[in-house]
Amino acid sequence: MFKKILIVGCGLIGSSILRASIEKKISKKIYILEKSKKNISKIKKINSNLLFLNKINKNISNIDFVILCTPMSQYEKIILKLNNFLPSNALITDIGSTKEKLLEIKNRKLNKRLNWIMSHPISGSEVSGPDYGSKNLFKKKWCILIRDKNKKALIKVAKFWKRIGAKIVFMESDQHDKIFSMTSHLPHLIAYNLIKTAQDFQKKNKKNIIKFSAGGLRDFSRTAASNVIMWRDIFFSNKSNMIKAIDMFIKNLNGLKNNIKLSQDKKLRKILKNSKKVRKQIIDLKQDVSKPDFGRNSI
Amino acid sequence: MFKKILIVGCGLIGSSILRASIEKKISKKIYILEKSKKNISKIKKINSNLLFLNKINKNISNIDFVILCTPMSQYEKIILKLNNFLPSNALITDIGSTKEKLLEIKNRKLNKRLNWIMSHPISGSEVSGPDYGSKNLFKKKWCILIRDKNKKALIKVAKFWKRIGAKIVFMESDQHDKIFSMTSHLPHLIAYNLIKTAQDFQKKNKKNIIKFSAGGLRDFSRTAASNVIMWRDIFFSNKSNMIKAIDMFIKNLNGLKNNIKLSQDKKLRKILKNSKKVRKQIIDLKQDVSKPDFGRNSI
Repeated sequence: MFKKILIVGCGLIGSSILRASIEKKISKKIYILEKSKKNISKIKKINSNLLFLNKINKNISNIDFVILCTPMSQYEKIILKLNNFLPSNALITDIGSTKEKLLEIKNRKLNKRLNWIMSHPISGSEVSGPDYGSKNLFKKKWCILIRDKNKKALIKVAKFWKRIGAKIVFMESDQHDKIFSMTSHLPHLIAYNLIKTAQDFQKKNKKNIIKFSAGGLRDFSRTAASNVIMWRDIFFSNKSNMIKAIDMFIKNLNGLKNNIKLSQDKKLRKILKNSKKVRKQIIDLKQDVSKPDFGRNSI
Repeated sequence: MFKKILIVGCGLIGSSILRASIEKKISKKIYILEKSKKNISKIKKINSNLLFLNKINKNISNIDFVILCTPMSQYEKIILKLNNFLPSNALITDIGSTKEKLLEIKNRKLNKRLNWIMSHPISGSEVSGPDYGSKNLFKKKWCILIRDKNKKALIKVAKFWKRIGAKIVFMESDQHDKIFSMTSHLPHLIAYNLIKTAQDFQKKNKKNIIKFSAGGLRDFSRTAASNVIMWRDIFFSNKSNMIKAIDMFIKNLNGLKNNIKLSQDKKLRKILKNSKKVRKQIIDLKQDVSKPDFGRNSI
């Protein structure tokens, strides 16, 4: 599919793309740019034919496809370097979770002789690093591609994701950022906030409550253990949608608080009951399985 | 251990107690009081020697242990009937998730010749009904017992839970309700509120966002699919702790909103980073496993 590809940043997602690319013979040669020495030694065990770069320089002058897998806050700096060394018409994609800010960087900074098609694979976990990567990470998962006037480049990137197992959806960048503020970014912020509130409660009441977290808190703690830099970048780069989503959330929570305070039985039950509909939709759309969860089996 | 026990309400928890009681030979005879005909026919398949009651009457005059497994809002009505028919010194327990309101009912309504020791097994799921019950539901799970001046009765109830696999912790009722407002009740309310907010967002933006729920929303939808009546009862019966917990949560969420709005990098990162500590504690305390979650395997 490609002659030479470069994966910039080889953590959970980068190493999963690497593994899947080897499996699906995406490219004759694969270059890796990874800063962490610990990660490099782990990645070397995946395959012995990889080519490691320690910076972006003339060695990338015949790369035809670059995948940015670092935290989003590093993209701008990397793009400026790619501008200098990539050959004309080289294709770039990324895996960033927000797109409006990246579109700004693209419009302002990307050299016009290069093509950057934006991707967002909906996969990942609370863990980071190449140890947890898997060639199957994208299998049957959605990958959002941001629409682009360069149709040829867009189709090529779509083919790449399909080849490594993903299902493609095309969106505008603003539509993308709005939707994911609600389905992903707000839930993560809420999980972080719940854990922060539990910590404050522990401090205030001098009680170890974590021991009793199986009743609900536990499940949020997993989400709230996600990568700090990645999520800082997401929250900052989707600022206006985040603020709107938080405001909607607080308005509704004040409503529920009032329902509880005033013992508004009918109103409360209606809200609780409606939640089940969403659960049903999620299961029907195969975004989760209906099998109940009683806490993880291996405990 | 007992001669005749009565399980009132035989859904997820009741039928699990039933199954475990049969397995551990807790009682010579087991009586069941269950209103749903559908449930009764399912329960009959668990064991053919069960005795079914259709109401509380003189047939319970030689029961020595009653376990209340209905939603909490039915406890008062049931206690008033038990008062009339249970033999003196009969032992009662329950599985309610809040205790202060139940203590009020006990103090005001329970006939003094009866003993009610309060239990709260920390187990359960988003599903309801006897189909999902299991004899192992309580195995290695905490069961909170509310301290009581009747030590003999307290020890007897503790023995019962230990025998069916639970680990015992003793607490005061006010301490219990405070702790679980944070570890269980607030997380459930937050999950319900997040799903409600996502529904409002869908309506407002006329977009089907559920398709992309794998990025975070999905995990909350499971918690928010829990039993409506059970959770209505919990929220109403732990009102003052719920309101305090919601206020703490909103205060913190406004703080995070501000961190995002003003791009307060250091402050935001500190909060996100601290969450990982709680996750580590939860895993160290064996309340969850460290195995990462990439979405459920069978999807």
